[in-house]
Amino acid sequence: MVYIIKVDKFGKDVKKGTAMIKAGIIGATGYAGAELVRLLSAHKEVEIVWYGSRSYIEKNYADIYRNMFEIVEAACLDDNMEELAERADVIFTATPQGYLASVLNDAILEKARIVDLSADYRMKDVSVYEVWYGITHASPRYLDEAVYGLCEINRDKIRAARLVANPGCYTTCSILTAYPLVRAGLIDPDTLIVDAKSGTSGAGRGAKTANLFCEVNENIKAYGVTTHRHTPEIEEQLGYAAGRKITVTFTPHLVPMNRGILVTAYAALQRKADGSLPTARELRAAYLACYQKETFIRVLPEGVCPETRWVEGSNYVDLNFAVEQRSGRVIMMGALDNLVKGAAGQAVQNMNLMFGLPETEGLSLVPVFP
Amino acid sequence: MVYIIKVDKFGKDVKKGTAMIKAGIIGATGYAGAELVRLLSAHKEVEIVWYGSRSYIEKNYADIYRNMFEIVEAACLDDNMEELAERADVIFTATPQGYLASVLNDAILEKARIVDLSADYRMKDVSVYEVWYGITHASPRYLDEAVYGLCEINRDKIRAARLVANPGCYTTCSILTAYPLVRAGLIDPDTLIVDAKSGTSGAGRGAKTANLFCEVNENIKAYGVTTHRHTPEIEEQLGYAAGRKITVTFTPHLVPMNRGILVTAYAALQRKADGSLPTARELRAAYLACYQKETFIRVLPEGVCPETRWVEGSNYVDLNFAVEQRSGRVIMMGALDNLVKGAAGQAVQNMNLMFGLPETEGLSLVPVFP
Amino acid sequence: MVYIIKVDKFGKDVKKGTAMIKAGIIGATGYAGAELVRLLSAHKEVEIVWYGSRSYIEKNYADIYRNMFEIVEAACLDDNMEELAERADVIFTATPQGYLASVLNDAILEKARIVDLSADYRMKDVSVYEVWYGITHASPRYLDEAVYGLCEINRDKIRAARLVANPGCYTTCSILTAYPLVRAGLIDPDTLIVDAKSGTSGAGRGAKTANLFCEVNENIKAYGVTTHRHTPEIEEQLGYAAGRKITVTFTPHLVPMNRGILVTAYAALQRKADGSLPTARELRAAYLACYQKETFIRVLPEGVCPETRWVEGSNYVDLNFAVEQRSGRVIMMGALDNLVKGAAGQAVQNMNLMFGLPETEGLSLVPVFP
Amino acid sequence: MVYIIKVDKFGKDVKKGTAMIKAGIIGATGYAGAELVRLLSAHKEVEIVWYGSRSYIEKNYADIYRNMFEIVEAACLDDNMEELAERADVIFTATPQGYLASVLNDAILEKARIVDLSADYRMKDVSVYEVWYGITHASPRYLDEAVYGLCEINRDKIRAARLVANPGCYTTCSILTAYPLVRAGLIDPDTLIVDAKSGTSGAGRGAKTANLFCEVNENIKAYGVTTHRHTPEIEEQLGYAAGRKITVTFTPHLVPMNRGILVTAYAALQRKADGSLPTARELRAAYLACYQKETFIRVLPEGVCPETRWVEGSNYVDLNFAVEQRSGRVIMMGALDNLVKGAAGQAVQNMNLMFGLPETEGLSLVPVFP
Repeated sequence: MVYIIKVDKFGKDVKKGTAMIKAGIIGATGYAGAELVRLLSAHKEVEIVWYGSRSYIEKNYADIYRNMFEIVEAACLDDNMEELAERADVIFTATPQGYLASVLNDAILEKARIVDLSADYRMKDVSVYEVWYGITHASPRYLDEAVYGLCEINRDKIRAARLVANPGCYTTCSILTAYPLVRAGLIDPDTLIVDAKSGTSGAGRGAKTANLFCEVNENIKAYGVTTHRHTPEIEEQLGYAAGRKITVTFTPHLVPMNRGILVTAYAALQRKADGSLPTARELRAAYLACYQKETFIRVLPEGVCPETRWVEGSNYVDLNFAVEQRSGRVIMMGALDNLVKGAAGQAVQNMNLMFGLPETEGLSLVPVFP
Repeated sequence: MVYIIKVDKFGKDVKKGTAMIKAGIIGATGYAGAELVRLLSAHKEVEIVWYGSRSYIEKNYADIYRNMFEIVEAACLDDNMEELAERADVIFTATPQGYLASVLNDAILEKARIVDLSADYRMKDVSVYEVWYGITHASPRYLDEAVYGLCEINRDKIRAARLVANPGCYTTCSILTAYPLVRAGLIDPDTLIVDAKSGTSGAGRGAKTANLFCEVNENIKAYGVTTHRHTPEIEEQLGYAAGRKITVTFTPHLVPMNRGILVTAYAALQRKADGSLPTARELRAAYLACYQKETFIRVLPEGVCPETRWVEGSNYVDLNFAVEQRSGRVIMMGALDNLVKGAAGQAVQNMNLMFGLPETEGLSLVPVFP
Repeated sequence: MVYIIKVDKFGKDVKKGTAMIKAGIIGATGYAGAELVRLLSAHKEVEIVWYGSRSYIEKNYADIYRNMFEIVEAACLDDNMEELAERADVIFTATPQGYLASVLNDAILEKARIVDLSADYRMKDVSVYEVWYGITHASPRYLDEAVYGLCEINRDKIRAARLVANPGCYTTCSILTAYPLVRAGLIDPDTLIVDAKSGTSGAGRGAKTANLFCEVNENIKAYGVTTHRHTPEIEEQLGYAAGRKITVTFTPHLVPMNRGILVTAYAALQRKADGSLPTARELRAAYLACYQKETFIRVLPEGVCPETRWVEGSNYVDLNFAVEQRSGRVIMMGALDNLVKGAAGQAVQNMNLMFGLPETEGLSLVPVFP
Repeated sequence: MVYIIKVDKFGKDVKKGTAMIKAGIIGATGYAGAELVRLLSAHKEVEIVWYGSRSYIEKNYADIYRNMFEIVEAACLDDNMEELAERADVIFTATPQGYLASVLNDAILEKARIVDLSADYRMKDVSVYEVWYGITHASPRYLDEAVYGLCEINRDKIRAARLVANPGCYTTCSILTAYPLVRAGLIDPDTLIVDAKSGTSGAGRGAKTANLFCEVNENIKAYGVTTHRHTPEIEEQLGYAAGRKITVTFTPHLVPMNRGILVTAYAALQRKADGSLPTARELRAAYLACYQKETFIRVLPEGVCPETRWVEGSNYVDLNFAVEQRSGRVIMMGALDNLVKGAAGQAVQNMNLMFGLPETEGLSLVPVFP
């Protein structure tokens, strides 16, 4: 029998039985899973009923993440999706690539909504998935149904979805940064180059020498050059905005900080019929047309560059751009917290949409600085 | 005319006019002041009506702290306490030592409650203040009235107070760490040695070479050895617990991280009449007797050492201890976030008590990790 | 009377009177100046006779940089170039832009060789300097004589020079990274985009809020987008390699680490007459043709990305590249220590060349890791 | 066939055949082993003939530590001490506890000198070793012969030794910090409390979750409280200075930085016959009496606290103290680089002594800052 409750030390059982949505997490002890726990434990409409973690079965969750001591009082469970679907209204899978595809079936989907934080259902073309990820997709039959969970772009489809593919961290930042200019035809999408920089939590909590403190600290490096798996995801989504297939150069870098992704994207401005370049004012209008009403996207004042510190701990994406007349290029910049808008925050935003809650519920997170 | 409002991008004015408490902050652009803004802007019973900052008068607050872009839309004001007292129900002074003492008067105290984050009213003996701080106290007549705002210890007095002296960051951590054993007579308080380690936000936002990134990063140092101003504050409060004057050795250190204070405190165990040492079980009982019902104090399981990462961004204090039979000593340890429980969080906790709100209102902050 | 000597605690005066070259440093208390002190104090042919620092006149150098305690025993002097030229064989100016131009004259140049770490003599076209730096050049008459001190490219001219313009940190890394492919015509130089990331020592030791630990730590940002002053320097030098004027997009970023610059550069490969792209093998051959015999440039094995940690503390530049067939682009990468090969190390390398010493003298620095 | 050579890119074989001492390293791919490689590769009297690493046999050393690319061209070998003793004049064992004890024999000791960086021969009392380390000592018969390699204290014995036990990192710093006052009888050694803070390289290069970047960064914690294995080593050595057995409280902490140890040590001053406390002047005299002639120990000017940044990359130990009249205590402070004076640097210093070289040979390392 699962016993899950948020304990109030003054004696009240805060949420037991009153929460609208029962949520389960598979992969609750990775960094993205733990961020889900942080956000959902403070979400007033949610009760977490399953802390799935194959590595720590029967261990107290708060012994693994001691920040949750006296907040979460539950033991970790295995990753039994069948049983979980019986108990939960929504399942978050913060699992390695291939896991969800290997266990998904109709019975599960009929019982619970799924927000998948892995890449299994992000790309419509199964061959692209199989080439870039090097694994065979075990249940491509759900690809059509799956909705790509970039809320600001696919909001309506998400509302009706049973299976949402939560976008990658780099992907969210890259797409949102370039989307308005691609959609408006203001840049040549085939000249798009995305130079991305990520904090180290993006590398996960696995015990690898390369991610030890002394290896990451006082260092910066590119990695996965020309081969990073978020590339085809960016290409597919921005291709929809462009109305055709496009090719993007994407280079990720590892930065000695815990959280945050900064994207610096470069593209040639699309000349108009008269040979002139679009102006900064036109570009800004394109950004505002897309994002002015978005709570979680902040188009910064002119001349202000996005910085990861200003979004840390929150679901915000900060965006801006600079026009370079000399070269006819635009430099687009975007910053987000890879664990929030780049993972768990966006997953909660998707859940809110799927369950008809206010989209910002549980996500009114003021960025923590310093 | 002040125009202060928390803007919701979907069109609603979230708190205007409905909030119970109008709050003003003097010193809103220092790190502690900014943390007050972060906490109060999410506090459902509070509206901030005054962002005081002598250095940035008329500048938009969100241009200085860009994390608050689209959250706070207000310009900074000066530090006119008289006018502020007219408008606000509570005033937080996150100001240099001596400021509040120099401006405080009866008229102000009759109109608004004050939570002072400076040291002006922390110590009852004005001569101790003047020796350690090297300045003359401009209004010692309020020293008697002022209540030392360590909520877990002075809760009842705080409820009735007009003027609360919010404790220092090192002080809060040091006192709470040693208090149960001093009070229970289980250690000899004159053997108490407090070795404290602080993140760099404790050094403030002033532009000093010593606090540049390259000077602090990859370094650890002690400073203020034998002379740090939090020493007499610790001695006075633990002296109350001991029932007599005590002398404490206190050494602070600067650690290359943003937030967090860790206290490692050493003391000789007090032998019993039969010559035996108190047991770990007795010590633990003393801690639990003091803190078991406290929401913000977590006495960790046996053998688990407090770490600053587990409390970051929250109002928690994590505590534990280890008995060393060989030496007859106990090593006590405490961790907190210097900007939350060590400053702004405790200030809000004090405000909650003063205004009859639930003590945890606006402070249900899940620690952010990593 | 100046008293300068490297003291050996066992009683010997290590270098007094025996060193071949007397060196003076103007700006010895900035980070680049201090690195010059570190390198020159261990250089067996050099005696430092002048620690110039307008901010710290008459202060002991080792009181400002305590790493030099018992190594350097000398007080700081002012920036009197005339007097210094009488005493020194070589003068290093690690000074703000415009300083050297304002004081340089024939008398000085006849007495002492100069290695200028500022930008005053880096660009041949005075109008480019004046536009990008926003100041009037006070002595453009020496621009013709000045030699651009990028040793691997201008070695022979440097040997004969009286006045060497030591390249900027970003510039050294950017040029060396792209030079072989530009010179060999393997990329289209007008498509060149340089995305550079720097440690914070590059921002200098001035007391600015923006460079405080808590502002830089846990953050990454772009700055000087489209306007950074190293841009025209890169364009001029790579223009020589291309045989024509070129336009480069250059974006610097600030990384939370002390030392290191990483350049990630993007360019379209130049198709051959038959429409095919150059191969990775051809690109590698171009790199090796330029650098195989260079001690300080390491072309890494295929597939290995440069990382700043592997060059820290040394005069090395690590280089590599990756071909992206899908886009027809090449991603070039370079890493160096901004204070060594990006400043003081290259200055010493220039001095070695100017004085006929082995180019590696005093620069056999094994990178320090971790 | 072993092929080991330091390659000069201009064509000369720098040291082949000319170096006086052939050195082998067992455990060359840990952080301490790698620091030995850094120091020995620049030591003019040494040729490294054996890069032992059980984990990386037959891998190129420079593929594991890329800072050594083009500096070290050799493959890793196993840990065959017998064969190594045939080839090397000196063997450094940077190995887990128990390794050397399990393989040492007379034949090896007759052929090669040994500097052991593990704890196997640090303590004379085998039962103390076995209790604190929890393993049986496999060859205690060499304990008598082994010399404790704290150079400044045991210099003469080291010169004649075949087997030197290189002290631990915490130990070196703790002992050197307190030694002068213990020896001079100016403090009560049984009141000694050592609060030590270490950079993360001290935790080794093993792939453990606890040492990942995101776990160490933005955190400070105590660990091994009352149980750390360096405790008995400190007690034994300071006991010799005190002339009797003493008990010390020792608490280590993990700091988010790569290198450096800071010790803050507390003790009660020993009152004189007339009841007065020793003066700061007397304490300073005690420090100078011990260390004035030591190249690697810097007693800082009055009032200046040691900081790890000032010794990074060097073999220095910086020391100072402050007297607290109020409590009758002294606060002693020491800083060193845990990988240099705390491990590899001291090992080289020991080797220099054992082979009759100048003690500073290869150790004239100017601290690297920032």
